[in-house]
Amino acid sequence: MIKVGIVGGTGYTGVELLRLLAQHPHVELRAITSRGDAGRAVADMFPSLRGRIALSFADPKAADLEACDLVFFATPNGIAMGQARALLDAGVRVIDLAADFRIKDIAVWEKWYGMKHAAPELVSEAVYGLPEANRAQIRPARLVANPGCYPTAVQLGFLPLVESGLVDGDHLIADAKSGVSGAGRKAEVHSLFSETSDSFKAYGVPGHRHLPEIRQGLSIAAGKAVGLTFVPHLTPMIRGIHATLYARVTREADFQALYESRYKEEPFVDVLPFASHPDTRSVRAANICRIALHRPQGGDTLVVLSVIDNLVKGAAGQAVQNMNIMFGFDECAGLTQIPVLP
Amino acid sequence: MIKVGIVGGTGYTGVELLRLLAQHPHVELRAITSRGDAGRAVADMFPSLRGRIALSFADPKAADLEACDLVFFATPNGIAMGQARALLDAGVRVIDLAADFRIKDIAVWEKWYGMKHAAPELVSEAVYGLPEANRAQIRPARLVANPGCYPTAVQLGFLPLVESGLVDGDHLIADAKSGVSGAGRKAEVHSLFSETSDSFKAYGVPGHRHLPEIRQGLSIAAGKAVGLTFVPHLTPMIRGIHATLYARVTREADFQALYESRYKEEPFVDVLPFASHPDTRSVRAANICRIALHRPQGGDTLVVLSVIDNLVKGAAGQAVQNMNIMFGFDECAGLTQIPVLP
Amino acid sequence: MIKVGIVGGTGYTGVELLRLLAQHPHVELRAITSRGDAGRAVADMFPSLRGRIALSFADPKAADLEACDLVFFATPNGIAMGQARALLDAGVRVIDLAADFRIKDIAVWEKWYGMKHAAPELVSEAVYGLPEANRAQIRPARLVANPGCYPTAVQLGFLPLVESGLVDGDHLIADAKSGVSGAGRKAEVHSLFSETSDSFKAYGVPGHRHLPEIRQGLSIAAGKAVGLTFVPHLTPMIRGIHATLYARVTREADFQALYESRYKEEPFVDVLPFASHPDTRSVRAANICRIALHRPQGGDTLVVLSVIDNLVKGAAGQAVQNMNIMFGFDECAGLTQIPVLP
Amino acid sequence: MIKVGIVGGTGYTGVELLRLLAQHPHVELRAITSRGDAGRAVADMFPSLRGRIALSFADPKAADLEACDLVFFATPNGIAMGQARALLDAGVRVIDLAADFRIKDIAVWEKWYGMKHAAPELVSEAVYGLPEANRAQIRPARLVANPGCYPTAVQLGFLPLVESGLVDGDHLIADAKSGVSGAGRKAEVHSLFSETSDSFKAYGVPGHRHLPEIRQGLSIAAGKAVGLTFVPHLTPMIRGIHATLYARVTREADFQALYESRYKEEPFVDVLPFASHPDTRSVRAANICRIALHRPQGGDTLVVLSVIDNLVKGAAGQAVQNMNIMFGFDECAGLTQIPVLP
Repeated sequence: MIKVGIVGGTGYTGVELLRLLAQHPHVELRAITSRGDAGRAVADMFPSLRGRIALSFADPKAADLEACDLVFFATPNGIAMGQARALLDAGVRVIDLAADFRIKDIAVWEKWYGMKHAAPELVSEAVYGLPEANRAQIRPARLVANPGCYPTAVQLGFLPLVESGLVDGDHLIADAKSGVSGAGRKAEVHSLFSETSDSFKAYGVPGHRHLPEIRQGLSIAAGKAVGLTFVPHLTPMIRGIHATLYARVTREADFQALYESRYKEEPFVDVLPFASHPDTRSVRAANICRIALHRPQGGDTLVVLSVIDNLVKGAAGQAVQNMNIMFGFDECAGLTQIPVLP
Repeated sequence: MIKVGIVGGTGYTGVELLRLLAQHPHVELRAITSRGDAGRAVADMFPSLRGRIALSFADPKAADLEACDLVFFATPNGIAMGQARALLDAGVRVIDLAADFRIKDIAVWEKWYGMKHAAPELVSEAVYGLPEANRAQIRPARLVANPGCYPTAVQLGFLPLVESGLVDGDHLIADAKSGVSGAGRKAEVHSLFSETSDSFKAYGVPGHRHLPEIRQGLSIAAGKAVGLTFVPHLTPMIRGIHATLYARVTREADFQALYESRYKEEPFVDVLPFASHPDTRSVRAANICRIALHRPQGGDTLVVLSVIDNLVKGAAGQAVQNMNIMFGFDECAGLTQIPVLP
Repeated sequence: MIKVGIVGGTGYTGVELLRLLAQHPHVELRAITSRGDAGRAVADMFPSLRGRIALSFADPKAADLEACDLVFFATPNGIAMGQARALLDAGVRVIDLAADFRIKDIAVWEKWYGMKHAAPELVSEAVYGLPEANRAQIRPARLVANPGCYPTAVQLGFLPLVESGLVDGDHLIADAKSGVSGAGRKAEVHSLFSETSDSFKAYGVPGHRHLPEIRQGLSIAAGKAVGLTFVPHLTPMIRGIHATLYARVTREADFQALYESRYKEEPFVDVLPFASHPDTRSVRAANICRIALHRPQGGDTLVVLSVIDNLVKGAAGQAVQNMNIMFGFDECAGLTQIPVLP
Repeated sequence: MIKVGIVGGTGYTGVELLRLLAQHPHVELRAITSRGDAGRAVADMFPSLRGRIALSFADPKAADLEACDLVFFATPNGIAMGQARALLDAGVRVIDLAADFRIKDIAVWEKWYGMKHAAPELVSEAVYGLPEANRAQIRPARLVANPGCYPTAVQLGFLPLVESGLVDGDHLIADAKSGVSGAGRKAEVHSLFSETSDSFKAYGVPGHRHLPEIRQGLSIAAGKAVGLTFVPHLTPMIRGIHATLYARVTREADFQALYESRYKEEPFVDVLPFASHPDTRSVRAANICRIALHRPQGGDTLVVLSVIDNLVKGAAGQAVQNMNIMFGFDECAGLTQIPVLP
């Protein structure tokens, strides 16, 4: 049993972490902090946790996080970078579910996130927590940068292609669709039910913060800079990301075999039979990425469909997967939920 | 480990049973039958079960159900009554998730279900599987009639009141709202997305089949016939039932204490603090009924709010709970899922 | 053509007023004000109005509202009461879509709305704008209090019963369900898509501000105080209210004939055949209330189903209907939209 | 006033035609046929039309369609091709909302639609009813093939580009998302609420019937064959199509000016300011296509966003627009509805 703390547990990634950790066989949840809701019982804010989580939100200052083995940051961007150093110095390992440590190039990060980085020296130490790409580095890491939701779906969908160099890496296209929970639990007009229900739209087409993150990961995998057009959309569902990926084939191969081989040992990536159509509900509330390949009309454009639950494999579930790797647990511990369908 | 079979597993209660049983510590799933889909892999029809259920649907004739310890019927009404006798004679215990054995009065059943009962002699033996009312009888039962979804939510909400005789039992009102999955996985125009989304309506107001079932249960609890107006509604969500119950107080009492005491030992009934407002998502995908009491403006009308997931506590979860009781397992075995929120 | 102004046009009742007024044959829209969005083109905020509304939001101070024949207030509660006097003195007629002038008893209003009333002397002059009850008084009115959404659906559903005194007026029950747009376009967590979609709940059961408004209207109609239990619910759809009303019959009558006769001349109330089940989409985006009667199992409880679009007959449409009456236009002018189905 | 008939009015395009035609100033609706529902009042099936459409569905044999000036076919594919000849011979003009006359190459049509064409000689006469491309030919046409929903959104989005030859026409990509009403009002499991709500998926990626239709239209516009990857998706909303289009720029130009100029005179195409994000609700229930251009990171990939209501500009509204052109009415007659938002 390890002692675990959560900083900032009142958002959707926070409550999802709680759902997963409350059932984890090797975790003792010690503290969960919230500036605004200190003193309030967690199960009072999230009745789904009644009888399952006895903790109350603690004031960040009062919570003895340094006594934990691991602390998750489920905070807005810009918080973890200010607090991680002290925890690391106290021997606590850290997984940040926000974006503070994802981008290696500080200048790029500062441009896209619009703030000065408070701990640039930690960025180089941080390991990008995509287990399917970085498992070996995650194991000993003190500080893990948990990937974004879009970046998880898009990178898992493109990785075998860019690693193998079989497609035109200068003109990748990722047309991605997300449920509204991806926008978080902030009170904002554009996330209201009456603004998002029964409607569909693209957003952030000129540039979305997940673009540099995806580009960084794919470029590392390709061994050279890739070119990517990334268009995110908002779709009227709570959970789920569906990435539709387009790549121009430059060298022929058995792509289906390529994907099956690449992910053969991966417990949380499921390559479907060729020409399948995964729906997001097939991964709802579970830590899985399902991927299907298509070659429409046998042309030179390959289409890859990649689906995840943005709050699980795209956030809290992947964070628990990283924790399992870091502490030597069975990688699937606490992550065996079956998707909820219908 | 007991050997379990499922008859008719292609509907929503079937796939939900599979989700729960696949994770149950004491169950070995031996067969699942489907007339129309025999030979097809279960995980092919329900990709959410890929890697978790290796079975294919079996032809009902070929499946060796008699080698099972327990068979669930997740079939339309009228099937189980034709097949239960042979299984019982072979020593197999049976839980019917349909309505065949719920109503004790054969004439009433035949009127509401519009068919002749094929096994009236089994009806008297069958135990109505609402554990909170009939746990002792469920334990040794060979044949359990699993309650309907509305009847579960409404009875659990009214039971303490009618048992105690503190309200006018002649004029109970149950205004109930159900998600669309309650209508099943049949191809019917009135269950289409474009017919039910972004809209709300009552249905079956002149008379719904769950009315006599609820009336029977409440009358037994009251020790006399109760009068009930039951108005079901369809609400644009997949899972969930919200029953809003109205009763006229005839004798004062501490109703909150009454409910808390009545359900103190019940693992799957959660009485909320007085004047709470449970939402259906607080029980989504979990085997729980949450109940809250209100006394608007201190008048003589008591309002009870009762929510369940119609596919779990209202169907498959309750069936597993009954199985646990029948076979002496921990009643919570395989039923510890935390509700999925958001 | 009359000159019309709107104060506070950035909420849902505001944009709905714009949709209706832009097509009204006798209206010239002169000004629409917004403190926060002054200078912004209306069609920039609401692209649905591109090419149809050329106005920009005006600063409240700069807008020459006194040159209008009529001003609508589509503001939060508490605004109109501070500004109506000056407009009335300038000869401008006023329709308030908020609650400032709905409740005749100032003490009751102040208790439920939690503020001091700024213009109590106008309350007695104000006419409650439910045309089906007060058409004659609306015609000459200078100041009309447009009814709330729930009050419209519930009162139209109960009016024939309480006017005729055929039911127990001390124990009326209104179980009402609303789409989320009823909560307005304010940025609040509880109205987020991820909080309200795929879920259902009651709210405000201990007491909702529309309760005293409904009770006042029904009491006037009954000629004596009525007793009402009012339970509002939130349902995952954008528009629509479905009120399910329960009344105990104390004297028999042909209730269907009663309703058909009561509403025979009403252009915007549609009494359906006995035992119908109106859905809210049958009135979506149109100024109609559809009503159906039921007498379940022939018992003494009468069930009335009443549906409206909360933004049309429950707000902006009714306001236009009141305007038509006040200015002697055809009562249906600008209100002939056919409901949008599916 | 022209006399109009509708063949097959029980689907979603049928009821939408009725909504539009009931308010059209120059149309007298004479007959609407339905094999299965003959004798039933239209307003009984679609209560939204109560008081607005007095007709009953007529038996196809009994309806005197030959007395009409114009007949719309709102039937499944394969019906109009068997009946159009007789109507044309009787001097009746025909608009087919199905696909029978859309594809000029009979072999291609027969391959994609899986049936023998019953009237190949009419295909060459038929005019493809996309007014923005073919207005002059539509005017005198006897037989108009109303475009499909996806083809309308995709062609309007791509037309200026392919006409001008400024992009790589061999590798166009159309990633399109449709509401569920596009699947029609047929009772099919995959269109059920519980199958499609709160989920997102691609479908028909190997090949969708609208692909050859789009390719034909764009090839005509380009003056040479275009290459297109078309990936349709199902999104949990009732109405709306959002097409996200990708093209590689081969020659620079002011693309925003190109689009604005191309559609300057078009009453039903709205080019938004550069880098806008139209949502489908901004065209809900109205006959409009809104288009926005993006050039992410100034790269060589142009992104075009194109939204329509699939039942209006993508079906019934466009059919009425074609009717207006054919009979010399104002092209906007009966099509001035403002989109319903929220």
